[in-house]
Amino acid sequence: MREKIKHIQPVNEQMGQTVARYIDTLTKPQGSLGRVEELAIQLGKITGEPFPQMSHPGVIIMAADHGVAREGVSAFPQEVTSQMVYNFVQGGAAINSFAKQIGARLEIVDIGVLQDMEDESITHRKVRNGTGNIAQENAMTHEQAEQCIEIGMNIACKQIEQGVKCLIAGDMGIGNTTSSSAIIACCSQYSSLEDIATIVGIGTGINTKQLEHKQQIVHKALHFHQPHSDDPIDILAKIGGLEIGGMVGVMLGAAEQRKPIIVDGLISTAAALVAVKLCPHVRDYMIFAHLSQEPGHRQALELLQARPLLDLNLRLGEGSGAALAYPLVQAAANMLADMATFDSGRVSEKS
Amino acid sequence: MREKIKHIQPVNEQMGQTVARYIDTLTKPQGSLGRVEELAIQLGKITGEPFPQMSHPGVIIMAADHGVAREGVSAFPQEVTSQMVYNFVQGGAAINSFAKQIGARLEIVDIGVLQDMEDESITHRKVRNGTGNIAQENAMTHEQAEQCIEIGMNIACKQIEQGVKCLIAGDMGIGNTTSSSAIIACCSQYSSLEDIATIVGIGTGINTKQLEHKQQIVHKALHFHQPHSDDPIDILAKIGGLEIGGMVGVMLGAAEQRKPIIVDGLISTAAALVAVKLCPHVRDYMIFAHLSQEPGHRQALELLQARPLLDLNLRLGEGSGAALAYPLVQAAANMLADMATFDSGRVSEKS
Repeated sequence: MREKIKHIQPVNEQMGQTVARYIDTLTKPQGSLGRVEELAIQLGKITGEPFPQMSHPGVIIMAADHGVAREGVSAFPQEVTSQMVYNFVQGGAAINSFAKQIGARLEIVDIGVLQDMEDESITHRKVRNGTGNIAQENAMTHEQAEQCIEIGMNIACKQIEQGVKCLIAGDMGIGNTTSSSAIIACCSQYSSLEDIATIVGIGTGINTKQLEHKQQIVHKALHFHQPHSDDPIDILAKIGGLEIGGMVGVMLGAAEQRKPIIVDGLISTAAALVAVKLCPHVRDYMIFAHLSQEPGHRQALELLQARPLLDLNLRLGEGSGAALAYPLVQAAANMLADMATFDSGRVSEKS
Repeated sequence: MREKIKHIQPVNEQMGQTVARYIDTLTKPQGSLGRVEELAIQLGKITGEPFPQMSHPGVIIMAADHGVAREGVSAFPQEVTSQMVYNFVQGGAAINSFAKQIGARLEIVDIGVLQDMEDESITHRKVRNGTGNIAQENAMTHEQAEQCIEIGMNIACKQIEQGVKCLIAGDMGIGNTTSSSAIIACCSQYSSLEDIATIVGIGTGINTKQLEHKQQIVHKALHFHQPHSDDPIDILAKIGGLEIGGMVGVMLGAAEQRKPIIVDGLISTAAALVAVKLCPHVRDYMIFAHLSQEPGHRQALELLQARPLLDLNLRLGEGSGAALAYPLVQAAANMLADMATFDSGRVSEKS
């Protein structure tokens, strides 16, 4: 894992400049496609190509359970993790619909579901049967955290080898907004209950009393473990999740292969924080899809100095928001590939 | 025209409720798809169908020239209108790329380009060769304004008859941000130069001195014509544009056929203001794509009490922003059509 991370290169700033100059020759007023132009420049930097291709994307859903679910932090019972994995297999979840719409390959990875999963179409990479309850024990060992990252990197690299041009890491795991909020609090160096409360949200839809309890659990976990905010593996092992570790790996793998990664909501952005701590270059390979309803998401985006593309009051996960943002990424690439220049289109330039 | 407008029905609120209830049975936390759920409910109301279909969309680009371009209000020479029409025909503009991406039918209508256009693939409906210079004369007669609307309605209805499920009205016309700003100022009952200046923007990219001149031209046009802000045909005839009239017609036609219309930026929203004055029901058939960089756009959206889906610093027109927003509309329809319910997906409900 450490060896592969060393291979991650900074993005190609020069190609960004080349693309920016080219965009100014296209038949439209300069700058008039706003953030779509910025995206195209970023795609140039990431891929090192003047005409980056974005078809087709890949969605990798990492599924795992959380011991902390036993603390009653979710509106849904823990078995929903495995039930939703089967729902992904059957094609009935939101991400199935949105992945189909964007022509994405969808891979479902059991990286740590509590139950033993039986289905050929699942990628079986179970590191352990759910994490420990972070309110009173480590989520996993340091070795298991590294193993999750390794798994994510390998799956990402394999998808890219097979032709995927742009990656989305999705999540499924009842209890994972608790773990993600703890990661974001840790990275923010929050320790008071008051500060922590500002970034813990309703997740799947808990009531006010349950929310207060969830805030206390996050507070308790941070005080019990005191994870080192500059040690990403320590964070993952003490308060993380197996699927979050897998998503960190997908992000690192995408960057290593010079492909963009579209970051989704709370869970995905918590993974992004960990990935950037492992390798700061990875930040520039990330496209931030949307601003979630979860209050911790805004904080995580601020830590990453990220401005998301969409603001649609989403709070679903599964990579669903990233899939909804993908058409904008595709449009940026298509703009470069398809549009005429003032010269080729025989259009008079600005007078 | 007036007869057809009388056929426009209010949206089906009851179907909206049916769709809302159905969404709450889908395998995701309630409300977790935020504005995508709101869109699905709106599509139910518009179409009157529990499972509205949105594939495929149609983009109708209305092209026309503006006499006011002679006042030097644009960064581009007037011949760019006809050159861009040929660019649309050749497939080299931004809207060509984005329309192709969303699988849209693209129809280019010459409703008033100055030059005589020769190409079989253009829909020839020229009402006159450009408008009069609104700084000193009417843009067109009342009859011509009604004729533009009639043309737009007929083209929209024909596309819908041929299977188009969702419409986008795009614009091309050098000088049309001046005319649109005048319409928005009139609908806002602005008359001082100071107020008018707050909503006049750089359009295709003019400098500060040109911007001041453009503000004065809008002010001059409003004072010269004193259009009746409650008479939409008077507004179009005195300070409008032929393509804007055509877009008004497309919007009315979509509503008459119970199909959604995705409203683009400044020009499109100016047309939306006129359409809603002709028939207030039309407002509920509109989906607002994005917030443009043009300052007048925010004001126009406020007049319509509209909250757009995207905020990407666009200021291109052509329907390009609406095409970029269409995948969200499609996702809303797909969510309804594709997702399993808690029951069918065998997923436990909230505990």
